Amino acid sequence: MKLIDGKQISQDIVSELTTEVAELKGTKPCIAFIRVGEDPASVSYVRQKNRTAEKIGITPLLFELPETVTQEELFAKVEELNADKTVNGILIQSPLPKHLDEQAAFNLIDPNKDVDGFHVQNAGRVVQEDPDGFVSCTPAGIIEICKREGISLEGKHVVVIGRSLIVGKTFALLAMQKGPHANATVTVCHSRTKNLPEVVRAADVVVAAIGRPNFVTADMVKDGAVVIDVGINRVEDPSKKSGYRIVGDVDFAAVEPKASRITPVPGGVGPMTVAMLMKNTFKAYQLQSRS
Amino acid sequence: MKLIDGKQISQDIVSELTTEVAELKGTKPCIAFIRVGEDPASVSYVRQKNRTAEKIGITPLLFELPETVTQEELFAKVEELNADKTVNGILIQSPLPKHLDEQAAFNLIDPNKDVDGFHVQNAGRVVQEDPDGFVSCTPAGIIEICKREGISLEGKHVVVIGRSLIVGKTFALLAMQKGPHANATVTVCHSRTKNLPEVVRAADVVVAAIGRPNFVTADMVKDGAVVIDVGINRVEDPSKKSGYRIVGDVDFAAVEPKASRITPVPGGVGPMTVAMLMKNTFKAYQLQSRS
Repeated sequence: MKLIDGKQISQDIVSELTTEVAELKGTKPCIAFIRVGEDPASVSYVRQKNRTAEKIGITPLLFELPETVTQEELFAKVEELNADKTVNGILIQSPLPKHLDEQAAFNLIDPNKDVDGFHVQNAGRVVQEDPDGFVSCTPAGIIEICKREGISLEGKHVVVIGRSLIVGKTFALLAMQKGPHANATVTVCHSRTKNLPEVVRAADVVVAAIGRPNFVTADMVKDGAVVIDVGINRVEDPSKKSGYRIVGDVDFAAVEPKASRITPVPGGVGPMTVAMLMKNTFKAYQLQSRS
Repeated sequence: MKLIDGKQISQDIVSELTTEVAELKGTKPCIAFIRVGEDPASVSYVRQKNRTAEKIGITPLLFELPETVTQEELFAKVEELNADKTVNGILIQSPLPKHLDEQAAFNLIDPNKDVDGFHVQNAGRVVQEDPDGFVSCTPAGIIEICKREGISLEGKHVVVIGRSLIVGKTFALLAMQKGPHANATVTVCHSRTKNLPEVVRAADVVVAAIGRPNFVTADMVKDGAVVIDVGINRVEDPSKKSGYRIVGDVDFAAVEPKASRITPVPGGVGPMTVAMLMKNTFKAYQLQSRS
């Protein structure tokens, strides 16, 4: 099938983890969520992560801090959770209110509990190809899709559009690593790239993570390319009750006929993120049990 | 001039640092070198770094540990130097004997004294574009060459051949950063790349760091490209007293006529490494004085 069903893949991962957690003797894995304020998107994301954890048998702990929380109070909570041996993973829901230093908060998390992979040390572990590091969930999810769908990156030309820390750069680093499910030739292009369409046309695998609706058009895509769409963009749509719909970074209707494989939006990369977070939490539990 | 004189640039940097250090009131910057065993190349490298530090007015401390040193003894020395407030930078000369865990030793160095930029946290800081991080000296030296020679990477297609931690990957991350002296479209290719010549031909700037003599041939280089040769390879040469000569990764004689700018080997990127180490040591001193 041409369409990559990220929803199904993420459900498979959740099922596998449910089995693995059920087989554990003793304490179950535990993830702590810190959410600051009542941003509706953040509330919804954390709820979804909480629900998936529960489904798997991972114990979720939810800490809801007020919008007015001070940096000291937030940091004290992180340090408390770092010290708590029953907590295996800690996630601070982004974005934080502007008076808080988000990267400093991520860097305060014990890197071995940093299941979101945002700690500077985990960024470094990706560069150094350390298998015990935590990789941020979206790029890890793309690699997982490739593994499970038999899409080999070996020797392929992967072109990543977008150089964000959380997606573009990290995926580029993963794809160029040594070893199976990697070994790709990798190009990173972005808003400053000249002749972007020409650069993207060289790709065997296109990863679109630039955050612009329908940015990747059919003329940029080589016949038979694999197209991975990371974009989640709201565009106005009066025909919808909400007044908008979600589209990716790829002009799906036009690109789909040329692609050998393609992820839809929604239902492609998006659902993988929560599944990979749970996989990271299970990994953290295992690494912590070992030591 | 077409030829990039890395030796001259590095001498300029040494002169500038000499002036800056002379102007400092109070304690001068201090770098500690740890060398294990008597590997002739390591002895020579450390001697050269030591001499350059002295020339600038940076205090060098040399710790020569025996080949048989245990990991515990090495780590104890690193921790002693971490705790010593008069030491601003620490360098462990690579390679270490095989019974020692080199990356663990690098990761034990206080990241704020890690002037070689090999600590996992400094690898992460490059990814996160943290200006207070330490960048490993060879890729930092290439950026410095570009700055000083007026070679803009903005919107250019940079192709890096080689994905080593110390050079290829780190340079790729620097070139794709946001901001001046960066903003490049970056491709990383390597031994597993298919159609490598075709990939390299797309480059406005070629960075060869694959460690194979004369690997980059004229047919791989676009007319007018900038060619940066990081290779340092020994090839047999009976006409030399030593029996060998040093060549780069680029077939210089054939490529030079096509290039708009090119670094020779020796005398190109090589001399930049020690100069950047000294720049990092001065930066460490400044950051530590501030805090």
